[in-house]
Amino acid sequence: MSKITVLGTGSWGTILGNLLAENGHEVHLWGNNPAVIDEINQKHTNNHYLTDFTINQSLVADHDLAAALKDTEVVLFVVPTNAIRSVAKEILPYLTKCENPPILVHAAKGIELKTKLRISEVLKTILPTEKFGEVVVISGPSHAEDVAKRDLTALTAASKDLSRAQKIQRLFGNEYFRLYTNTDVVGVEIGAALKNVIAIGAGIVHGLGYGDNTKAALMTRGLAEITRFGVKLGADPLTFSGLSGVGDLIVTCTSVNSRNWRAGNQLGQGQKLADVLEQMGQVVEGVTTAQAVHFEAKDLGVSVPITDSIYEILYEGQDLKEGIVKLMNRDLKAEFN
Amino acid sequence: MSKITVLGTGSWGTILGNLLAENGHEVHLWGNNPAVIDEINQKHTNNHYLTDFTINQSLVADHDLAAALKDTEVVLFVVPTNAIRSVAKEILPYLTKCENPPILVHAAKGIELKTKLRISEVLKTILPTEKFGEVVVISGPSHAEDVAKRDLTALTAASKDLSRAQKIQRLFGNEYFRLYTNTDVVGVEIGAALKNVIAIGAGIVHGLGYGDNTKAALMTRGLAEITRFGVKLGADPLTFSGLSGVGDLIVTCTSVNSRNWRAGNQLGQGQKLADVLEQMGQVVEGVTTAQAVHFEAKDLGVSVPITDSIYEILYEGQDLKEGIVKLMNRDLKAEFN
Repeated sequence: MSKITVLGTGSWGTILGNLLAENGHEVHLWGNNPAVIDEINQKHTNNHYLTDFTINQSLVADHDLAAALKDTEVVLFVVPTNAIRSVAKEILPYLTKCENPPILVHAAKGIELKTKLRISEVLKTILPTEKFGEVVVISGPSHAEDVAKRDLTALTAASKDLSRAQKIQRLFGNEYFRLYTNTDVVGVEIGAALKNVIAIGAGIVHGLGYGDNTKAALMTRGLAEITRFGVKLGADPLTFSGLSGVGDLIVTCTSVNSRNWRAGNQLGQGQKLADVLEQMGQVVEGVTTAQAVHFEAKDLGVSVPITDSIYEILYEGQDLKEGIVKLMNRDLKAEFN
Repeated sequence: MSKITVLGTGSWGTILGNLLAENGHEVHLWGNNPAVIDEINQKHTNNHYLTDFTINQSLVADHDLAAALKDTEVVLFVVPTNAIRSVAKEILPYLTKCENPPILVHAAKGIELKTKLRISEVLKTILPTEKFGEVVVISGPSHAEDVAKRDLTALTAASKDLSRAQKIQRLFGNEYFRLYTNTDVVGVEIGAALKNVIAIGAGIVHGLGYGDNTKAALMTRGLAEITRFGVKLGADPLTFSGLSGVGDLIVTCTSVNSRNWRAGNQLGQGQKLADVLEQMGQVVEGVTTAQAVHFEAKDLGVSVPITDSIYEILYEGQDLKEGIVKLMNRDLKAEFN
């Protein structure tokens, strides 16, 4: 039994915290909205994010970082990508007071827009590896809504330090939630971030009225694009055929629970981006990731035609149908070169 | 403009024939049910397989093989796997009378149960390569119902003889139907056949009440299993990340138009296999393919745990839920070995 601090009271943070509490750990869930903290502690619900879900009563929600982080053994970041850096800075003083430096884990799926850094790279710039060790990332096909129903779920726990990934595998795993270790952090983080962009595309295709054939073709080429980009950054191509690659791509592009897919679908139906994002009420990571990857791919000299199209649709007023047709009719003669 | 003979008046044969007729070719669609032939010629419909679909009026349906095959340039097999051999034998005398030996193409997705041969191998035993040249296989994410609606569809055309694959690419391609060439016939045929087995599994998982996470995990491991089996037979692993691999797997496991998924779903809901197959009214290829692959994998020494589970459920009375839980909870510690 370990003390584990979960940072972020969104649906995924709440569900992971609940899972860890069910597994018998002492879980502190930290968030910056006092009303949500009170609701969790008093009613054991988090209705804005999870309807009809009762949180394990042993879980404690904290608005106070000192209490949440006191002598914690594991810190799990489940905040949006654009908050990773500021939250890391905010907790640093508390972590240095811990008896032992805690293991750092994150479950975020994005790329920092300004720096083009992956999440573990952002964390390392604030919370250095020499002191805190290698970061662990957990990722895979895992909608919070399905984990809430105890759906059989399989994820990847990746770290350059395999023993840390194995520790996290043991802490999180139970009979319905299984983690498999991997040491390819680059591949896991790139797969996690970029599948959200493809999911926006899959949603647009659906919203425009295209069917399953078109979606599957887009996803197939999307997987090739993600792999190409990741390999350029040093990832193992095999990772993209695993849970955090094709697995997460499938669930994000085919489940109505996916925010990125839903956002794309609404765009395809003719809604404006600003309205879609406002209605969503939660972060749609793919919108920012499309921008980050569009520019980073240019710098790296990697071809990412789907991401470029999504970028043009989101940021440059490209007509949706024209963009999708252009994309599908690119003059590719052989499947692989 | 070419004379093309399509063998098989099921939904896919009819749709491919219609597509080729739309492309301006002289299309003869052969089938062994006189009522269907008459319906196609007189009403330009094939209502048993395709509701609310009007077939291009230039397409001619034939019950007479001599008329269908006279001086044909391309023969496209779209019959069930278990009929490939007998149809090939039946047409051989007519093909030898053609001015030039026609190009042989197939769009079937299975493995011959008795011999464990792939479709192109079965064809070659009857219609030898020395005389007819290398077979072309077309495969990919392409539900007939979506092609009927002119959904943007992308497929693979594979042949050991690239020039033949390119010829088929030109004959079939139009603004909504695109083919990409590949020379890995083994990989394309294995992907096409084995995805049906995984789709039955995905259907069972859904029928049992599991959600998107479980399905995505099963599909991810299914892709690894298909790749492992195919590579053992000499396939290029890259093929399985393409349209005829992961692309077709996605569409077959996630579309309600998939017969194999629907059969699995009904099994998961508690129906008996015999009843499911009777109600379907069309061949569910994965049921036979599971049997063929289960035994061939034993001979080859390849691990195919999902196929083995589906086989045990279909043929040996294994409890469905127990089989799926056992499968998902296999003691795999690292994602890749």
